[in-house]
Amino acid sequence: MRWAVLLAGGSGTRFWPLSTPRTPKQLLPLSGAASTAEESVERLTGLIPRERILVVAGDALAARLRALLKLPADNVLVEPRPASTAPALIWATWEARRRDPDAEVLSLHADWVVGDAAAFRRTADAALVTARTHDRLVTVGVVPSRPETGYGYIVPGAPLDGAARTVARFSEKPDAATALDLMAAGALWNSGLFAWTADRLLAEVEHRTPEVARAIPRLEQGDVPGFFDAVTPISIDVGLLERSDAVAVVSGSFAWDDVGTWQALARVRPKDPDGNVLVGRGVLDEAHDCVVWSESDAVVLWGVKDLVVVQANGRVLIMPTERAARMKELLDALPPDIRDVEA
Amino acid sequence: MRWAVLLAGGSGTRFWPLSTPRTPKQLLPLSGAASTAEESVERLTGLIPRERILVVAGDALAARLRALLKLPADNVLVEPRPASTAPALIWATWEARRRDPDAEVLSLHADWVVGDAAAFRRTADAALVTARTHDRLVTVGVVPSRPETGYGYIVPGAPLDGAARTVARFSEKPDAATALDLMAAGALWNSGLFAWTADRLLAEVEHRTPEVARAIPRLEQGDVPGFFDAVTPISIDVGLLERSDAVAVVSGSFAWDDVGTWQALARVRPKDPDGNVLVGRGVLDEAHDCVVWSESDAVVLWGVKDLVVVQANGRVLIMPTERAARMKELLDALPPDIRDVEA
Repeated sequence: MRWAVLLAGGSGTRFWPLSTPRTPKQLLPLSGAASTAEESVERLTGLIPRERILVVAGDALAARLRALLKLPADNVLVEPRPASTAPALIWATWEARRRDPDAEVLSLHADWVVGDAAAFRRTADAALVTARTHDRLVTVGVVPSRPETGYGYIVPGAPLDGAARTVARFSEKPDAATALDLMAAGALWNSGLFAWTADRLLAEVEHRTPEVARAIPRLEQGDVPGFFDAVTPISIDVGLLERSDAVAVVSGSFAWDDVGTWQALARVRPKDPDGNVLVGRGVLDEAHDCVVWSESDAVVLWGVKDLVVVQANGRVLIMPTERAARMKELLDALPPDIRDVEA
Repeated sequence: MRWAVLLAGGSGTRFWPLSTPRTPKQLLPLSGAASTAEESVERLTGLIPRERILVVAGDALAARLRALLKLPADNVLVEPRPASTAPALIWATWEARRRDPDAEVLSLHADWVVGDAAAFRRTADAALVTARTHDRLVTVGVVPSRPETGYGYIVPGAPLDGAARTVARFSEKPDAATALDLMAAGALWNSGLFAWTADRLLAEVEHRTPEVARAIPRLEQGDVPGFFDAVTPISIDVGLLERSDAVAVVSGSFAWDDVGTWQALARVRPKDPDGNVLVGRGVLDEAHDCVVWSESDAVVLWGVKDLVVVQANGRVLIMPTERAARMKELLDALPPDIRDVEA
């Protein structure tokens, strides 16, 4: 049967001061009224039922996710510590197979904004079918809308059938010129949406990913903390997909965004005629290309441009939009009493 | 005896959203811990005792000013309506003479920031002496520190004695080129600090200011509202000083600022090495020449310059410092539910 594994970890720094360790990005209503985690589960309706959706997250979020996502309690898998994506996905796939020996797994993240849920489901369905038919680890490549340097790219290879191709190679976070070349050559964004049968995934891990494979006996002993103690943190891309010969790519043409920065809100929210995004109460007068999020105060911008303005949790942040991707630098420089919103 | 008349009206728009009709600029601690109104009274210590300080303000502020300034209750004169400076000063001077037929009056405003209180008192003393000795209406001219276009200028004429000169002419709010010419020619800022004997002021008004003189009989009938109903609102400069031959100017070399805009805070508050002023809690990182006032939230500026940022009364205002003098334009454009902080 089909299972989904939703990665819902994440520490909540990129949307400071709104995001916090207890309310990270995936619990925020970035694109609309509901959190991206809720939207991620809703988006699977008709494709995979809630009782077969597994969520991986840290202890701090587990209770909130169970309540928010209305999942069976034991479907929220609590990571003892963050260890990148390979250990989490391999553990969850192992767990799906434990519950269902014939499990097929769709892997996704809880912080995506997707433009067309029906197109997303069609592509996910095609990826799951390809995973079974061709017995491969299937990546979903999204047609790029810009030469983004923050994403990984997939260069497709030979056709497998109408929807699927082999993967010629992966290219992680290219520079701007390379990103343009990749786009021109038909490369696709590596969305992080994957499909595989549990059997094939675990067989590939056995051969390709010793950093995690060596710890799987701990899972068989019921020792999840021991598994996380024994693995080397590594991403599924670097630790498995880039090493495997059994990968494929299915292309998806839905709008997809991982909303990695405050600036990204301008891609997933409606803009006013001057290019501003306003979430909350405020007035933007002679303001251009600003992103404003107000939790409670009325924000008045007059005669400014290219600013991110966030009022939340007793903080007001003002920076140029172009710095939105560098939030960690700022947070490293802030005194703890101002940085730690929940202190 | 010497009396002071402190004009404490003002509607509270220039320091929005911090200033409000109930807490206008003169009740805010713009330069330090105390409000400029309190500082204005304190500054007279040793020159004029509290029991001879009259304050003119509207009904909304009268009770707060009585409490704040620790004045006798009937020393706060409640204007029935705002009518510019001539009616207020003429009424208060009339009232001082009613209480003291030999009254000398020092006229000042409650929203000034003054750098050197002792120099201020020496100059005020010289102005009062000149007013009595030469029987003239004495203006205090402040040595300009910049070619300010928002102020009036006094061009001194012939010497009267060591400290005082006649006034050749007044120049109100010159353009930038004219302001430079005026500075070069030794013109002084018209501070609004004036001294006169009550007798001389009222005699001059009788001849020069029919807009107000015709209403004085109402005062004699004890009908203050009738007086304000009958006057034409006009400033003391236009309505009297510019018309009179009996004026003089005494120059003062104390730092004087009427703190007319948010940008002016950068003149009266200490700046950090990057030219920023921060009042309240916050962090200014790679920020330059910003003015930040935070009532409660921690304000974090990163990589921005030349901004005014104010968080107060459930509002956050962000604008370029160069727009600070145009606050009325902004407020006229704001919807009432956001503009009216006290609504």
